[in-house]
Amino acid sequence: MAKCKMILDLDTGIDDALAIAYALASEECDLIGIVGSYGNILVEDGVQNSLDLLELLGRPDVPVYTGLPHASTKDNFEVMPISALIHGKNGIGEVELKKADRTPETLPGVDFLIEAAHKYGKDLVIVPTGPLTNLAAAIKKDPTIVDLIGKVTLMGGALTVPGNVSPVTEANINQDPEAADEVFRSKLPLTMIGLDVTTRTLLTPKETQQWRDLKTLSGEKYADLTDYYINAYKVANAHLAGCALHDPLAVAAAIDPTLVTTLDLNMKVDTEGPYAGRTIGDETRINEPALTTKAAVNVDKERFVARFMERLTKLFSEH
Amino acid sequence: MAKCKMILDLDTGIDDALAIAYALASEECDLIGIVGSYGNILVEDGVQNSLDLLELLGRPDVPVYTGLPHASTKDNFEVMPISALIHGKNGIGEVELKKADRTPETLPGVDFLIEAAHKYGKDLVIVPTGPLTNLAAAIKKDPTIVDLIGKVTLMGGALTVPGNVSPVTEANINQDPEAADEVFRSKLPLTMIGLDVTTRTLLTPKETQQWRDLKTLSGEKYADLTDYYINAYKVANAHLAGCALHDPLAVAAAIDPTLVTTLDLNMKVDTEGPYAGRTIGDETRINEPALTTKAAVNVDKERFVARFMERLTKLFSEH
Repeated sequence: MAKCKMILDLDTGIDDALAIAYALASEECDLIGIVGSYGNILVEDGVQNSLDLLELLGRPDVPVYTGLPHASTKDNFEVMPISALIHGKNGIGEVELKKADRTPETLPGVDFLIEAAHKYGKDLVIVPTGPLTNLAAAIKKDPTIVDLIGKVTLMGGALTVPGNVSPVTEANINQDPEAADEVFRSKLPLTMIGLDVTTRTLLTPKETQQWRDLKTLSGEKYADLTDYYINAYKVANAHLAGCALHDPLAVAAAIDPTLVTTLDLNMKVDTEGPYAGRTIGDETRINEPALTTKAAVNVDKERFVARFMERLTKLFSEH
Repeated sequence: MAKCKMILDLDTGIDDALAIAYALASEECDLIGIVGSYGNILVEDGVQNSLDLLELLGRPDVPVYTGLPHASTKDNFEVMPISALIHGKNGIGEVELKKADRTPETLPGVDFLIEAAHKYGKDLVIVPTGPLTNLAAAIKKDPTIVDLIGKVTLMGGALTVPGNVSPVTEANINQDPEAADEVFRSKLPLTMIGLDVTTRTLLTPKETQQWRDLKTLSGEKYADLTDYYINAYKVANAHLAGCALHDPLAVAAAIDPTLVTTLDLNMKVDTEGPYAGRTIGDETRINEPALTTKAAVNVDKERFVARFMERLTKLFSEH
């Protein structure tokens, strides 16, 4: 089998930064591009963070594209206070990085997704860890890509546990429930990595100390931004004993699906009233075979966290 | 292993009537009693239906107890219009049955649950297919029974699919969310058989015709009441191609857990606002091992429906 071609669609964010590192540290896939989204931060700030992080990690060759700046049903976007609390105002825990020597690509992110689908077909793995606005726009612009793309493994949603923005909605889905509904109801080969599993994979200062001990620039910066995130979790998610590895788990599960247990389920996203943003089984399709949509409901957390630490520590030791 | 001792806690109701038949037709368990609840009907009407159905099926020896008449947080109960639509005003599809020669036991249903827990211990299997009011009251009155009871397999809730009373709540849980929350958070060995699986097990007039063709009284009566239910489903649940075998599936899964696929999950029931009555994972216990609570998320529907028809058709051929 050919080496997979991975695109990350990120609102870069701290756990998005960890997702970039995980992707770069994984030999099973080539990271062929990052599409920037809004969410944890404004789209332009997320794009800049991605550029800067790639340079920090010695990979200024990975192209970064600019995605859509706001939800499909809105005409603007403002960062939610809870996002700024968890990720810092600059998205990466107020950590300062050297500004990258380059600027993002001129091709719009949505077009990059479409071109990559046609070019790489079944070898293409898309990992959205922000709102599903870009992916929904891409399948609307070119519906044929639904049958071309190899796999979509997304971080978002909550099926068997409450949301983290409201009792029913998770932050990424909450940004654009309509786009998420389009994606979930499509025939894309989709795996949802939601709060069901990501809140079971936790990191603590014990782990970030290992990166700090490397005495490298990337080790120090990643320890700093992750510690910011861990401290924010103590305030915002006091019931968890560490910070949740949301986005890197999606990358890891895209590469090795055996890390999670999944449920085959035809899904939808509620878009109205107090239930808006809820990811849930579609009762009108409950007796149709669920051939393309899976939701992760359990995770081999020890194996994932060990692999996460092994890969990232090695990567940070080199830069 | 000793033959299991089963108690049904029913708001008898049409699918409750099918659950009684399934329990009587199953040699793996002795049906040692029925506790009547409110829900599909008033408690006294449900008790009468249970008495009459047991007589129809040749088992006037099975004792019937009267449970609590309303939710733990309320002081009265009225049948919801949707319940009357689905089950008929008399609870059994306006089918007329010969009135039983006996009356219910004088021991209150809640006390019967407690006595049975002490008497039968791990051999005791309780199958609630209505509100969880009686069971919550029993564990409140005698908390020691939580560790005595062998198994509780309940019909109720919806984890991976929407509810049937609101987008988040299923009818049984909706009647008494507080009682359900007590039961779900307890250490009872609990399996939830919710809409996730019961709306996948459907019956059609093709099956009830087989009962009608038996030319027995029970075959005719059960065909009549089930056809009423099937017709009501065409109106209330047009997306399903038949009526859902909610309550008998809970009995079947209590006897043979291999019929369903379950997820180990520490659960809770929301009790407030628009989310009241939702059964969902408890985010505060997501990183504690789920040792006692399981939710069914898939079902071997062909195997269940075949077994259901085999057992009930044999039973109806004899009465």
